[in-house]
Amino acid sequence: MSKKAIILLSGGLDSSTVLAIARAEGYECYALTINYRQRHNAELVAARNIANFFEVKDFKIVDIDLSWLKSSALTNKNISIPENPSIGIPVTYVPARNTIMMTLALAWAETIKSQNIFIGVNSVDYSGYPDCRPEYIESFQNMANLATKSAVEGNKIKIHTPLIEMTKAEIILKGIKNQVDYKMTVSCYQATENGLACGKCDSCRLRIEGFESAKIEDPTNYKT
Amino acid sequence: MSKKAIILLSGGLDSSTVLAIARAEGYECYALTINYRQRHNAELVAARNIANFFEVKDFKIVDIDLSWLKSSALTNKNISIPENPSIGIPVTYVPARNTIMMTLALAWAETIKSQNIFIGVNSVDYSGYPDCRPEYIESFQNMANLATKSAVEGNKIKIHTPLIEMTKAEIILKGIKNQVDYKMTVSCYQATENGLACGKCDSCRLRIEGFESAKIEDPTNYKT
Repeated sequence: MSKKAIILLSGGLDSSTVLAIARAEGYECYALTINYRQRHNAELVAARNIANFFEVKDFKIVDIDLSWLKSSALTNKNISIPENPSIGIPVTYVPARNTIMMTLALAWAETIKSQNIFIGVNSVDYSGYPDCRPEYIESFQNMANLATKSAVEGNKIKIHTPLIEMTKAEIILKGIKNQVDYKMTVSCYQATENGLACGKCDSCRLRIEGFESAKIEDPTNYKT
Repeated sequence: MSKKAIILLSGGLDSSTVLAIARAEGYECYALTINYRQRHNAELVAARNIANFFEVKDFKIVDIDLSWLKSSALTNKNISIPENPSIGIPVTYVPARNTIMMTLALAWAETIKSQNIFIGVNSVDYSGYPDCRPEYIESFQNMANLATKSAVEGNKIKIHTPLIEMTKAEIILKGIKNQVDYKMTVSCYQATENGLACGKCDSCRLRIEGFESAKIEDPTNYKT
């Protein structure tokens, strides 16, 4: 029997690559998408398409309204998405976002008796979010292994971060090797309902630079 | 200016006591109730009444559907609540429940610039849940202090667990001293819509024994 893994799948470039990697490593994949009322739904559609493409065992969208977190441009529609590089941690930062997502993955993992959670965090080409750093991931894993009945019974959780040391270009090359069609993925913070990217936000900028650096033609659909 | 604190408030005996303690210690209290589609709504009503009684600065109910966590009697209506003491961790255990709740508290804390989270976990008269132990709470706090922008900027989070070493009787006596009216609280895992307790489940049993041991008349409304 293959090992089960929960894959946090946003529908973006990084998490889609992570799903492809987990699948290539022989895991039985359970994809988890968190709908926290982010600004657009295009990434939820992308997540479902990618989950289907990679024939996951199960795909779940969990709804949680985070619109009361007024400080983030991703959850508060009254804050504009910046279209120039930010200094410090940008306004797209969502308080405790990765902790919320990994905790829901942890709950699902325990329910299906999985000991593996995959998340596409990256500490190289990232936006300065504190919950993307290796020391944070390690402390989450330590906490998770005290939090659950499974862990108490000896079935420890491992948080897999296959992209953590990779550049965006390396991620893209790894994904292409593992059958990711990046045209299906949506990274833009302000994509249209149809998944057209702005080409200007932090997330678009990192993605564009990644394709350029990898010398791969960028398949993204941009607003013209 | 008084210090701000997030209080996780379920509407039960323990969390109501915690709110009273935080208030008595001079915190400006923000009460957070998580509606995870537990079996009954009576405790949500109780939480709101208690939050009003203690004049919290803000009261928030966050909805998150956890009914897909099929292994717990609290989230899966097809599993009966046990009416006799269980051996080991009981079926009312909800995977990662306290981690989910504290993480949402952490997100709110960062948004309102609070460095304090209060939770009514208890490692004496409890039900064997792993996420009530001091070592778990400590590891959560360590993780939280790597997870957020606030913490990176030096504003560390403290998880307050004023009940952790107290017996149920001590909790009751502490609450009465701090104006808790336990008639307003609902602890029962299978309370009716009107808040009547079964008197048989683990949670009722611990509560009944607590009032007996404290030599306080039990004000709970039981089904007859």
